[in-house]
Amino acid sequence: MADKPAKGLADVVAASTALSDIDGGAGRLFYRGYDIHDLSGRISFEECVHLLQRGSLPTRPQLASLMADLAANRDIGPTADGLLPQVVRAGTPMESLRTLVSALSVDDPDAGDSGPAANERKALRLVAQLPVLVARYQAERSGASVPEPDTSLGIAGNFLLQITGRRPGARETEIFDECLVLHADHTMNASTFAARVCAATLSDMHSAITAAIGTLRGPLHGGANEEVMKTLQAIKGGVDEVEPFVRDALGSGRKIMGFGHRVYKTEDPRATHLRRMSEELGELTGNRRPFDLSRRMEQVVLEVKGLYPNVDFFAASVYHQLGIPTDLFTSVFAISRISGWTSHVMEQQLDNRLIRPDSEYIGERDQKWVPIDDR
Amino acid sequence: MADKPAKGLADVVAASTALSDIDGGAGRLFYRGYDIHDLSGRISFEECVHLLQRGSLPTRPQLASLMADLAANRDIGPTADGLLPQVVRAGTPMESLRTLVSALSVDDPDAGDSGPAANERKALRLVAQLPVLVARYQAERSGASVPEPDTSLGIAGNFLLQITGRRPGARETEIFDECLVLHADHTMNASTFAARVCAATLSDMHSAITAAIGTLRGPLHGGANEEVMKTLQAIKGGVDEVEPFVRDALGSGRKIMGFGHRVYKTEDPRATHLRRMSEELGELTGNRRPFDLSRRMEQVVLEVKGLYPNVDFFAASVYHQLGIPTDLFTSVFAISRISGWTSHVMEQQLDNRLIRPDSEYIGERDQKWVPIDDR
Repeated sequence: MADKPAKGLADVVAASTALSDIDGGAGRLFYRGYDIHDLSGRISFEECVHLLQRGSLPTRPQLASLMADLAANRDIGPTADGLLPQVVRAGTPMESLRTLVSALSVDDPDAGDSGPAANERKALRLVAQLPVLVARYQAERSGASVPEPDTSLGIAGNFLLQITGRRPGARETEIFDECLVLHADHTMNASTFAARVCAATLSDMHSAITAAIGTLRGPLHGGANEEVMKTLQAIKGGVDEVEPFVRDALGSGRKIMGFGHRVYKTEDPRATHLRRMSEELGELTGNRRPFDLSRRMEQVVLEVKGLYPNVDFFAASVYHQLGIPTDLFTSVFAISRISGWTSHVMEQQLDNRLIRPDSEYIGERDQKWVPIDDR
Repeated sequence: MADKPAKGLADVVAASTALSDIDGGAGRLFYRGYDIHDLSGRISFEECVHLLQRGSLPTRPQLASLMADLAANRDIGPTADGLLPQVVRAGTPMESLRTLVSALSVDDPDAGDSGPAANERKALRLVAQLPVLVARYQAERSGASVPEPDTSLGIAGNFLLQITGRRPGARETEIFDECLVLHADHTMNASTFAARVCAATLSDMHSAITAAIGTLRGPLHGGANEEVMKTLQAIKGGVDEVEPFVRDALGSGRKIMGFGHRVYKTEDPRATHLRRMSEELGELTGNRRPFDLSRRMEQVVLEVKGLYPNVDFFAASVYHQLGIPTDLFTSVFAISRISGWTSHVMEQQLDNRLIRPDSEYIGERDQKWVPIDDR
């Protein structure tokens, strides 16, 4: 038995995967052997789903079939539908999403079946349902109705349509589609690992995804993109206010979210693309301020702390410019990462072993029970 | 970076804990330094909750205060209450429990606060609420109403009262109380580990517990106790049918659940007590059959496979004899283990580091994107 704890399991290889790979030193990310720089802007999120869940970039007929399946599986079922008003009334977006995804299992046509074929159907259904749950959440709390999906649009375009209530521009749709591709998978991140720990007991797909959503919620994980936006919004003046703001925050021990990563020792390759998109959206919308503030913050944090931006940093200004409410940013992360989570659950269960580590005991020893009146 | 995968993280020390310790070679289990053999039958579940969540066996005034807090915090709040009929109508016990516990966060008076004091209050509230959720589930599906809790009974007695609809005998209550103590904590089991992975992103208590419940559900974890009962019920004849049944099952590659453990190399110390309770309940109820079948099965599996019973094995016949429906056994595990899960979440967040392991990449390399029509 090992006796030295690997706190946080840093550098411990917890699983084998054929889904994604990171070269932290070189700042490279691969999905099934494709460099993310090779894929970004060239494949749609649906192609990415096919790559992760089914193992290859789709041919045109395969993509058409996948998109038809996605369109046919958007329905969230009567239980989640019935729960929605009550859940939304009091809950924040991520706690509502956690409860609603948990409720999806009940009406899933493959409920009770965790075999490979059923898992693949559940995985696709969840990709179709998650954006609908987030759009329904937004509509419910704003007293609006959700626009009908537009059959000429994919997941990215329909989500923007349903969240903002207006048909997105072609370039906005492409940019958001690229965001979904960039967030789709990332090896053993905490939410994916939680999903695999759950799935390795041979529990069901919905249990594992519910665990992942609750884990993504944490501010040290997916919750960071919302924190980035709040930080940008806390700067009331111009670009020259960024440096004193950052120095003051870091000097008083506050953390600036969206920087640094357990695995990357250089720039997160996703940040490279998100930075470019943030700038382009600044030009498109005629409002460069979110990008300019972000760009300056990036420079100051690198100078002061030596930390590079991670995926969350430029995602914040991109989502903001796309008209997505700040408190839905982590939910948007989830509608992309569901593609990776579900693929990891399937991969775990195809060659399973219970994930059950050891612990180091650091407490009192040799305690003896005494009757309650003698304590 | 390590490059050898520790599949299932066997023997990898993933965290430090002062909550429980296992000596797998000697078959010993300790809660905060107390040997489980020293505690079993001597402390109530509420004393065990105090030990785990607050660090010490309570004095009489501390216990009285804890029990008053538990009694005052049974209310599940309007959201879970409102969701219950819809969730129960279609869901199995554990998927309903997962959705309902997720929904509890919304009405928690400490929602949005994950500080140590708020976490301690949430932890206690969850201990009080979980048995109520399970009892409400049972009542809802049987069209019965839940009997009012009896203030002279603790969690064990009230749960039996609310599940069976009749006041339990004193000895039955003591035995069930002891069961709850025996299931309370067990180092880095999969559900506890899932809770810690979630909590280490600084996500909230309810996210972590929801993850744990979904993980406990798996047949390789808490789900095993229900499988044990189904196996016992598949034997239609007497004790002499057990040996051919087991040999036939094992010979045709089927697994007999409730045996073997990642950590124990000898008898699970909890099984020692549960075996005794199973036999005593056989005498008390005048129906020794579940115990006799279990005892014989234990002998045959040890002879054929060299495996010892784990906590799930004798728990099955004990719960059955206490009148608990088989499909609620895993939920009963949860109403005990909630004491350990919540304590681990608090411990994790008091000295936190993100749990983010590495993975080994085993897939294709050097893939090159090609346009969809050339695939």
